[in-house]
Amino acid sequence: MSRLGEFHLIRRLLAPLTRNTPGAYNLTDDAATLAPSHGCELVVTKDAVVAGVHFFATDPPDLIARKALRVNLSDLAAKGARPVGFFMALMLPDHIDDAWLSAFVGGLGHDIDEFGFPLMGGDTTATPGPLAISITAIGEVKAGHMTRRNGAMPDDVLCVSGTIGDAALGLEVAKGEHKNLSAAHQEFLLGRYRLPLPRMLLGQAEAARDSACIDISDGLCADVGHICTQSNVGAIIEFDKVPLSMAVRAALAQSSTVLMQVLTGGDDYELAFAIPPANVPAALAHAQRVGVALTPIGRFVAGQGVSVLDASGRPVKLPATGYRHR
Amino acid sequence: MSRLGEFHLIRRLLAPLTRNTPGAYNLTDDAATLAPSHGCELVVTKDAVVAGVHFFATDPPDLIARKALRVNLSDLAAKGARPVGFFMALMLPDHIDDAWLSAFVGGLGHDIDEFGFPLMGGDTTATPGPLAISITAIGEVKAGHMTRRNGAMPDDVLCVSGTIGDAALGLEVAKGEHKNLSAAHQEFLLGRYRLPLPRMLLGQAEAARDSACIDISDGLCADVGHICTQSNVGAIIEFDKVPLSMAVRAALAQSSTVLMQVLTGGDDYELAFAIPPANVPAALAHAQRVGVALTPIGRFVAGQGVSVLDASGRPVKLPATGYRHR
Repeated sequence: MSRLGEFHLIRRLLAPLTRNTPGAYNLTDDAATLAPSHGCELVVTKDAVVAGVHFFATDPPDLIARKALRVNLSDLAAKGARPVGFFMALMLPDHIDDAWLSAFVGGLGHDIDEFGFPLMGGDTTATPGPLAISITAIGEVKAGHMTRRNGAMPDDVLCVSGTIGDAALGLEVAKGEHKNLSAAHQEFLLGRYRLPLPRMLLGQAEAARDSACIDISDGLCADVGHICTQSNVGAIIEFDKVPLSMAVRAALAQSSTVLMQVLTGGDDYELAFAIPPANVPAALAHAQRVGVALTPIGRFVAGQGVSVLDASGRPVKLPATGYRHR
Repeated sequence: MSRLGEFHLIRRLLAPLTRNTPGAYNLTDDAATLAPSHGCELVVTKDAVVAGVHFFATDPPDLIARKALRVNLSDLAAKGARPVGFFMALMLPDHIDDAWLSAFVGGLGHDIDEFGFPLMGGDTTATPGPLAISITAIGEVKAGHMTRRNGAMPDDVLCVSGTIGDAALGLEVAKGEHKNLSAAHQEFLLGRYRLPLPRMLLGQAEAARDSACIDISDGLCADVGHICTQSNVGAIIEFDKVPLSMAVRAALAQSSTVLMQVLTGGDDYELAFAIPPANVPAALAHAQRVGVALTPIGRFVAGQGVSVLDASGRPVKLPATGYRHR
């Protein structure tokens, strides 16, 4: 096992990830400089991931890198922000070797190009504990136009992107559960857990139309609940409208407990929007143009808290739940 | 032992640390917004600290917090930046309890007010490993005027702030060494290790006058060497001009190996400047006005690398060294 020193790690592996962005100074200085485009302000978010908490230490390094980046991009997407660049602190245990680092950096580079999101600075340090990656993501929006959590109004339509519940089942697949699903379904679910799809274009497009937005990381009910708390409204979700993948449908057919996973499982990194009724047709049309499913699944109401109704309109009892990412 | 859930930790302990800064939204959203003042750009730096690497897990929690913040402020100081705010990822092991968190937050709050440097966002997560704190610090400078590492020219005067070598000896005091120093000297050195003094006013004031600046975190020779590498020059340090505290003088009188600690030990977080000769008088006068010692200790020259001369002008042999923060 060999491992580059910090200096060479930065020079050889990390500096190219700046993609020559001017304010990053090729990682040769203590700090980076940046400014928002004319008329814009910066949107800053920070999510750290830790081996044994947010991912398995044995996960492929390129996917660890890409997920660490994408959970941050997902926050920018929810805020309607265009990606600008990111800062990364990499806390590396002794057992990480050059091959691992190369694969990790390869994964980062892939997503840096896919999302136009260069590395602008950061820090590498040893740790006696698990691998940890702390990313600060910077995007930009037209000044004063960040999509907040607190703008939902009664009668706004609750819409979600993509399909819900895949990642929570994917985590169970990673733990060896759902053996009776087809190999293709298992692989799909595992992929959804390991590699979220931040809905950048949808988030940016809907920013002009929606009242509030959040990305679904803690679980559908929990995150819609965050909008409700901040907006001082309630929400009603109709379960039979929640978009489900073929794999989740197959799992649901085998076990009714999957329903609760769909409602409370985390890590989907889809977006949940509150959209005024008049804006819904345009929102749906635009989602179609950017190629992302957008599905109305309920509405916001006066009051508080999130209620879920089953196909016959009866309330589904929800547990008070805290989601664990691994 | 009791511990607040993440929600209450954020609401009760961390949200007040925003000091109602508008773009932080009292930590109720996924992201913060910010923009530089008119004519300015943002300066962004990121330093993570890990228990067992950068500090002792048993250090007082308020000092752990303040040092984590100050090592980042020191980078802003070196770049001539005014503090704007910071983002923090807090990776908390199970054994951290509410009393520890309260003391930690108390320390943060102290320095937030001292430096006018509010918390603007971040993330808290569990970790099965050591406590880790990843901070992204944001400051601002007049656009295009960040002090770089790469501007030193031959004949520029090398000046340092404060006294050098205190923190490296303080680390040894923390490990039970230097028992034959007086209690007052030991306490002084330990304090210098545990609580750096970021030289904000000096850094901002000299930005107009200096060619290059860096903060001394890796060690005097190593960090002056970083300026040399980036500026493509060499440097000569005259050891008898290096400003030493009474405590370091006392230690040096007892052991000649202390000399090497002064030259290569890290964690002082003083500033090293390259200043054109014509600007030195004004720089010294200004340092006096802001109450920080600024001492010429050598000069930059054509060539490369850092040489150290002893009192009789003979070169001091330097080891190829890597500094460990703990």
